[in-house]
Amino acid sequence: MSYQAYKNHLKQLADVNYASALLQWDQEVYMPEKGGSYRASQISTLSGIAHQLATDPAFEKIVADLATDNSLSEQEKSNVLRTKRDIEKRKKFTREFVEEMSHAVSEGFVAWQEAKQKNDYSIFQPKLEKLLELKHREVEIAGYEGHPYNALLDDYEPGTTVDDVKKVFDDFKPKLKALMDKIFAATPPDDALFYRHYDKDKQWAFGIDLLKQMGYDFSAGRQDVSAHPFTISFGAGDVRVTTRVNENDLAEMIWSCIHEGGHALYEQGLPAADYGLPSGEAVSLAIHESQSRLWENNVGRSLPFWQHNYAKLQSVFPESLAAVGLHDFYKAFNRVQPSLVRTSADELTYHFHIIIRFELELELIEGKLTAANLPAAWNAKYKEYLGIDVPTDTQGVLQDVHWSHGSFGYFSTYSLGSLYAAQLFAQAQKEIPGLEDSIAAGNTAPLLLWLREKVHTKGRNTTSRLVCEEVTGQPLNADFFMAYAEKKYSGIYEF
Amino acid sequence: MSYQAYKNHLKQLADVNYASALLQWDQEVYMPEKGGSYRASQISTLSGIAHQLATDPAFEKIVADLATDNSLSEQEKSNVLRTKRDIEKRKKFTREFVEEMSHAVSEGFVAWQEAKQKNDYSIFQPKLEKLLELKHREVEIAGYEGHPYNALLDDYEPGTTVDDVKKVFDDFKPKLKALMDKIFAATPPDDALFYRHYDKDKQWAFGIDLLKQMGYDFSAGRQDVSAHPFTISFGAGDVRVTTRVNENDLAEMIWSCIHEGGHALYEQGLPAADYGLPSGEAVSLAIHESQSRLWENNVGRSLPFWQHNYAKLQSVFPESLAAVGLHDFYKAFNRVQPSLVRTSADELTYHFHIIIRFELELELIEGKLTAANLPAAWNAKYKEYLGIDVPTDTQGVLQDVHWSHGSFGYFSTYSLGSLYAAQLFAQAQKEIPGLEDSIAAGNTAPLLLWLREKVHTKGRNTTSRLVCEEVTGQPLNADFFMAYAEKKYSGIYEF
Repeated sequence: MSYQAYKNHLKQLADVNYASALLQWDQEVYMPEKGGSYRASQISTLSGIAHQLATDPAFEKIVADLATDNSLSEQEKSNVLRTKRDIEKRKKFTREFVEEMSHAVSEGFVAWQEAKQKNDYSIFQPKLEKLLELKHREVEIAGYEGHPYNALLDDYEPGTTVDDVKKVFDDFKPKLKALMDKIFAATPPDDALFYRHYDKDKQWAFGIDLLKQMGYDFSAGRQDVSAHPFTISFGAGDVRVTTRVNENDLAEMIWSCIHEGGHALYEQGLPAADYGLPSGEAVSLAIHESQSRLWENNVGRSLPFWQHNYAKLQSVFPESLAAVGLHDFYKAFNRVQPSLVRTSADELTYHFHIIIRFELELELIEGKLTAANLPAAWNAKYKEYLGIDVPTDTQGVLQDVHWSHGSFGYFSTYSLGSLYAAQLFAQAQKEIPGLEDSIAAGNTAPLLLWLREKVHTKGRNTTSRLVCEEVTGQPLNADFFMAYAEKKYSGIYEF
Repeated sequence: MSYQAYKNHLKQLADVNYASALLQWDQEVYMPEKGGSYRASQISTLSGIAHQLATDPAFEKIVADLATDNSLSEQEKSNVLRTKRDIEKRKKFTREFVEEMSHAVSEGFVAWQEAKQKNDYSIFQPKLEKLLELKHREVEIAGYEGHPYNALLDDYEPGTTVDDVKKVFDDFKPKLKALMDKIFAATPPDDALFYRHYDKDKQWAFGIDLLKQMGYDFSAGRQDVSAHPFTISFGAGDVRVTTRVNENDLAEMIWSCIHEGGHALYEQGLPAADYGLPSGEAVSLAIHESQSRLWENNVGRSLPFWQHNYAKLQSVFPESLAAVGLHDFYKAFNRVQPSLVRTSADELTYHFHIIIRFELELELIEGKLTAANLPAAWNAKYKEYLGIDVPTDTQGVLQDVHWSHGSFGYFSTYSLGSLYAAQLFAQAQKEIPGLEDSIAAGNTAPLLLWLREKVHTKGRNTTSRLVCEEVTGQPLNADFFMAYAEKKYSGIYEF
């Protein structure tokens, strides 16, 4: 009976959180300009209500009682214990703090949009200062062991610390750098074909086809256009993706579509009956990212995938692609080159975009860096790691939405996700007979089935570390990614 | 200070209600099929939270204290008193009752959609029985003087009773019937031109132009497609309309667009600074409907309006309209004929669609009629009042969404709205020099300005009765509508 009360309460909390998610989706997809004035307040109010529900004393009592109830099943017990830890963490924050943060986030987002559009960092700076001040307070309220940044990382990647991330990155950085040096010494493939004119509606239809092919269920989701592609869930029966379409860059739509599709397959595969329960939620952000990266890179940037899809793409855009062969197309979209914008970076230099943000975030949270000095520090790191000058803040420090959302502690999960993806995909290749042939035949169903079983059905009762060890037999390490990358790029760049 | 607390609380309540409105908008416009399973629960949870906020004892105390605070301004005092009455009414209902109703409404809506689509009333009947049972309970809980239906009418048209409505309708019915008899004795204009093929995208663009011309602000709203056109607000800065487009019926899109545009102009014109306060909300449903009807009929079905717009319409659809003159077009869209479907009825027979529903609702609430007997009673009334046979329930009792939404007590406001529209428009003609010439020149701005001042700035602190008397100098009566209709239709039908 009281486990039922626990479930009902979490269902109600999920209802409020998903309503809030719809307000956010709408804000980025369909909301008219003047709707913004009260939208921030609406989201903030729902955040406050969610906080109140999550820390309701009567609910806390139910959870405390259940935590010592031996009649619960293993999974029930594990849900209850996870919720107990959630409550302990959330209780540290007052409702006022949560609403203040939510309000700062909404205002930050609006200011960031304008700042980016006008290439004027000064519009965003005061809002970022406010967000950082709140983040410093959040870190102190939450408490931490070791580095203060651990308090933030724990929200996205429970059980992973700054030291863990540094250890992986320290091993990874020189190996990746060495590979990139070999690549930059070779002749780059020509990727000019991507920048021809590609009709938007035709691109859109092709993207929808890719999603369907991956197994994305359109009766439980939809795709819309937004400035920054994202995936958002309102329950496993309604998981939406967004993308953007650039008439003069075919690559942008294709791989953002596949990337978000990977996220969405995970959400659609979560156990729908566990709506609102930890066992119905994703393991962590890095595991989420492993799903998008696996589809985007290990599948979507592979030769077999395009053995099936390229003829179709040629038939949609014959004027641009009829004369381009499959191998030239494959080499073109795997061109490695330092660039300004993370979301359109190749899968190797990409990691330096992440490492830069991770290092800047550490300094911001340590208090060594301020919002005022951020653009200069950003530009210096791009020079140091990628050897490039940043011409405008729009293409630099303002390019990503995350900080305007108050999401600090988030970026490293992108690289961790890629490394998990490589490690998981290597395991899938071992366990699924003829996986590459199947992909080359346009059939990704066996892969999806494998991911459903090994990853998607795992809820937030476990950690990324445990999932990785259970599925692949060893902890996360960069070797799988490096093996994948060395094999692939030595072929493409012929060294 | 405590008026500020009062305002903050109502702002929070508005935030929750508008979030709930967005869930409903999305459900009818963009939600994928499988999203429905939890959407009902999400809306129901927010309804429960809104109810709790609206009847919060601490808030009630603030309101009670303010009600005797003589330092408040007139408007502040009037807001507080209105809220006090709202609380007294809402407090009668438990949160459980509100959530049960909300759930029944969501389920009713889903069942109605399926029943209508499959022309199978039996799918909807049990849900309607549940809704009626809840409505009977609601009436008893709310309490009433005179007729039990007054308890429901009061939600939509405070200060108006069943007797008031009957009095107006009893006067109106024979006069309208007499006019219709004259019309049916004359030769009807040919309206076949509307049923030619009209490209959907071109219709859509023309509808958007009409909305812009009316003064609808697209930076504070948007138009989307839905099965049943509606207007919905998330605050004065975000007021959305929907329409439907039928390739083989041009009239459907045009007048639903203008109708919803009229509603939306009202919501966009409400005082934005009074977000959440009674003074920031519409007077009543009949006054709301007066705005949609005034634009739809008194403006949108007038000759001057099309003197400006018809050439444009012809240029969009030359193949269908080039050979049709303005006067034939004008006569065609004013053709009066008994028909099955309310939303596409002409402005005269329309009132019998309303009177039928009003009479049926009275019987349902009196308990003289049950959900099981409703289709037969419906069909009998259509035979009696409009002389037509109802071939299917989809075109009959299932045609309207309202009952599936639990909205009983609502329909009479449609006719009252038309009568208010005629009375207000007659006053506008007196007060705005050259109004018709201005409309014929495509300039409806003077009319909008007049409506803004006389109607849109009036909040829910007054009643429809008072607004009508203030603006037109006399209480609502059918004479203005009859004078308008007799002049217009004697011209068109030449009697």
